[in-house]
Amino acid sequence: MSQTKGAILILSGPSGCGKSTLLKEVYKNINDYYFSISTTTRPIREGEKHGVDYYFVSKDEFEKDIEEGNFLEYANVHGNYYGTSLKPIMTALNEGKLVIFDIDVQGHKIVRKKLNNVITSVFITTPSLKELEHRLHNRSTDSADVILKRVENSKEEITHFKKYDYLIINDNLEEASKQLVAIANVARIKSKIYEDSSVESWLN
Amino acid sequence: MSQTKGAILILSGPSGCGKSTLLKEVYKNINDYYFSISTTTRPIREGEKHGVDYYFVSKDEFEKDIEEGNFLEYANVHGNYYGTSLKPIMTALNEGKLVIFDIDVQGHKIVRKKLNNVITSVFITTPSLKELEHRLHNRSTDSADVILKRVENSKEEITHFKKYDYLIINDNLEEASKQLVAIANVARIKSKIYEDSSVESWLN
Repeated sequence: MSQTKGAILILSGPSGCGKSTLLKEVYKNINDYYFSISTTTRPIREGEKHGVDYYFVSKDEFEKDIEEGNFLEYANVHGNYYGTSLKPIMTALNEGKLVIFDIDVQGHKIVRKKLNNVITSVFITTPSLKELEHRLHNRSTDSADVILKRVENSKEEITHFKKYDYLIINDNLEEASKQLVAIANVARIKSKIYEDSSVESWLN
Repeated sequence: MSQTKGAILILSGPSGCGKSTLLKEVYKNINDYYFSISTTTRPIREGEKHGVDYYFVSKDEFEKDIEEGNFLEYANVHGNYYGTSLKPIMTALNEGKLVIFDIDVQGHKIVRKKLNNVITSVFITTPSLKELEHRLHNRSTDSADVILKRVENSKEEITHFKKYDYLIINDNLEEASKQLVAIANVARIKSKIYEDSSVESWLN
């Protein structure tokens, strides 16, 4: 039986749910993946790296890419552009890689609409809203204002969880990363990944 | 977030694909499952055990169960009845177990139609038809006639593989059982398993 193209794995979940930590565990345990990195016009912050955290580009470059239809999706947030370039994703998919997106509920909707590839989606969350607030306060990277905004966003985002294939409740990091690694592995063997001519090739 | 009911895992695939061997690996590596055992009126064979291979019952008992609507599905094959009793399955699902079915393409269709629970389905096959024939001849448990019939059946069954969520090509036992264990584990965290009231419970 012959497989055709790469598969897509979409992760969403409120800021503070532990997504980045879980993703690091996934990267240790799977091969042949491509993590989609966003492009932005916002200034680079201390500790951030071009090509790791974001692709940092100028406003002119970004707007040229918009005109040329190079983005899968993009948005202007408080005067800064954020977008997902289509080209590296298509290249990775054609190479048969597992393309991983860390995007929000809106991004999930757009990817499902625009890409025909086999998609597996996972919503990750804390056991409760209280626990989320607790974690955001504890990591002390955000101001009280930002935490409030993140908490408000998460209340809306959680209502969409059933649009995702899987729900991971990140209560125990070890258990949750095992679950995410298992999902990443099975994302590649969805039956829809196989070509329609697979049956003929199996018979011969 | 609260989970409601058990999930269902359906395995199909041609006789000779290695399903039973793979299932043994799954049983070693997962908990809280219930394997659905069929009921039959065909005579018990040497080495078979009641309640392990089948529930062996009389024709009268079977027909009483048909009348009382106790079967999820049943068929009469060459004068012998084969059926799947509904009651132990519903009990296991209510206990939150993963209910595993080893059934054919037709059975898969019926379970999807009759049960509302969250279903994950897997089609297992050999890398090719030639390899399947090779394995059937090698295990020498079947007569040439029976092998021919099994091979003919498999040609039809394989055409339905895209109705299943996953396709496992059992080329390497270790790799294939890892895949099946991963699928069995993630079958329990499908987002649809969670109650509609989950969002409210998360917020409070």
